[in-house]
Amino acid sequence: MDPARIAEQYRREVREEIRLLDRSPKVILFLTTDNADSKTYAQYTRHACEDVGIDYELRRVTRLELEEAILSANQDDSIHGIFNYWPVFNNEQDAYLRNQVDYRKDIEGLCLYWTRKLYDNDRSAGDNKKAILPCTPLAVLKLLTEAGVYRTDIERPIEGKKICIFNRSEIVGRPLAMMLSNDGATVYSIDINGPLKFVDAKPSETEISRSEALSSADIVITGVPSPDFESIGSAEIKADAICLNFSSIANFKEDVDSPGRIFIPRVGPVTVAMCMRNSLRLFKNFHYG
Amino acid sequence: MDPARIAEQYRREVREEIRLLDRSPKVILFLTTDNADSKTYAQYTRHACEDVGIDYELRRVTRLELEEAILSANQDDSIHGIFNYWPVFNNEQDAYLRNQVDYRKDIEGLCLYWTRKLYDNDRSAGDNKKAILPCTPLAVLKLLTEAGVYRTDIERPIEGKKICIFNRSEIVGRPLAMMLSNDGATVYSIDINGPLKFVDAKPSETEISRSEALSSADIVITGVPSPDFESIGSAEIKADAICLNFSSIANFKEDVDSPGRIFIPRVGPVTVAMCMRNSLRLFKNFHYG
Repeated sequence: MDPARIAEQYRREVREEIRLLDRSPKVILFLTTDNADSKTYAQYTRHACEDVGIDYELRRVTRLELEEAILSANQDDSIHGIFNYWPVFNNEQDAYLRNQVDYRKDIEGLCLYWTRKLYDNDRSAGDNKKAILPCTPLAVLKLLTEAGVYRTDIERPIEGKKICIFNRSEIVGRPLAMMLSNDGATVYSIDINGPLKFVDAKPSETEISRSEALSSADIVITGVPSPDFESIGSAEIKADAICLNFSSIANFKEDVDSPGRIFIPRVGPVTVAMCMRNSLRLFKNFHYG
Repeated sequence: MDPARIAEQYRREVREEIRLLDRSPKVILFLTTDNADSKTYAQYTRHACEDVGIDYELRRVTRLELEEAILSANQDDSIHGIFNYWPVFNNEQDAYLRNQVDYRKDIEGLCLYWTRKLYDNDRSAGDNKKAILPCTPLAVLKLLTEAGVYRTDIERPIEGKKICIFNRSEIVGRPLAMMLSNDGATVYSIDINGPLKFVDAKPSETEISRSEALSSADIVITGVPSPDFESIGSAEIKADAICLNFSSIANFKEDVDSPGRIFIPRVGPVTVAMCMRNSLRLFKNFHYG
């Protein structure tokens, strides 16, 4: 499956909606590091903004200037959305910084206000305003929709599916496990601290092994940015498993991509499209909510 | 210097103030793990509550029950303060959990509401209510006051002093660096990610080496919970340096404790006293603010 093609569908929707507005949303993108992934991501976001008609400023600040820059952008009425490229400090200070962004301008949907909404499965931000979901978990749902396994025409879109997610970060893996289990899946969430099982957005302890979790999974999702991770091979998973990797490095062996399986090697383009979608939603919440 | 004796002074103040109240504050202490340090700390907190006259419930919950237990305690009008023993998950989820505590019940003073106040040097929480400062950084200030180097009778209590802090965690080292530099000190904050310099609560990049930072420091503060840390010896520091360790393990060599120096090997008893003080402050903010 080609994520770029699916991203284009969502970008087109955003582009057409923005064309009908009487003014353009404006976002500010803060780049603090020379990290190659962040710089590439910044290029993609810039191009996407140009493509859909979102005004943007890509501003270079030092890591020590970032907090004040965020607080200042929070106060600036001409800015509708704020976006940061991570990591900045690459430690717990990054979570602090994420929460300095005013939730009404939080394109990434990663501040605690939106996390609370997500965990409570509350899709509204009051007064006809819609909640913001974090870009990468949302992109995964869109790709699973495209794969035909996440059905938006039923109340529990992914009822009965078993899903194994390798990553339980606060910014992707844990919200994703909550969303998918809330939508009907049984999710095994595995990281270096061990496995947890999520059912109906409730985590419970489990002793399940990697091989047990993998062999029973209808969908396997990976996001482990470490070369030490033992990449997942075809023999470990179902012949018709849907495999999706959102890590910047390959977490599946090449033999996984075989007839009978849907293999989604990357999520990035759809994540960027979701950033555009969230930017538009923040703008609409602000002006028309 | 004996931290237990200094702790007793602060406990006495709290005890006498509580005796004059028409009812007792009530706090809830959530213990989730079998971590030995947490269990010891729980015992100390329990005894301190009994000593000063704070009603408490020490409740055992599993790590997966903790979030709901916190949210429920937030809603419970009979509870004035909430306290957690860390680590729980020992990853970034702990920062998430810390922020689930309603700031009006946050004994530890570690949720983002109080962190914002601290970084803005805003001592008020409105309507005659006083801000809550995090217990361990506050305990360090009290010990430095006792050591005669933090002078509460002048506007900039620690003007002109050079301080070296080994630890820049979000819960102790960084707030402590902000507080001390805000009060007039030049602070070199060092951790595994390198050094930063804090002046007037503003961090800046620096290339200073460990030996340079140590040899010029009037006060050396350590909080490195790793046996890999090369403990600090007498030859590295000033003959009249004040040395304070808040880590659970020794970060100074024994030869540091020599005539001419004030050596404070632990902070724990004063931290617990500050928890009692914060509990009383939350109670007063709630009932008499």
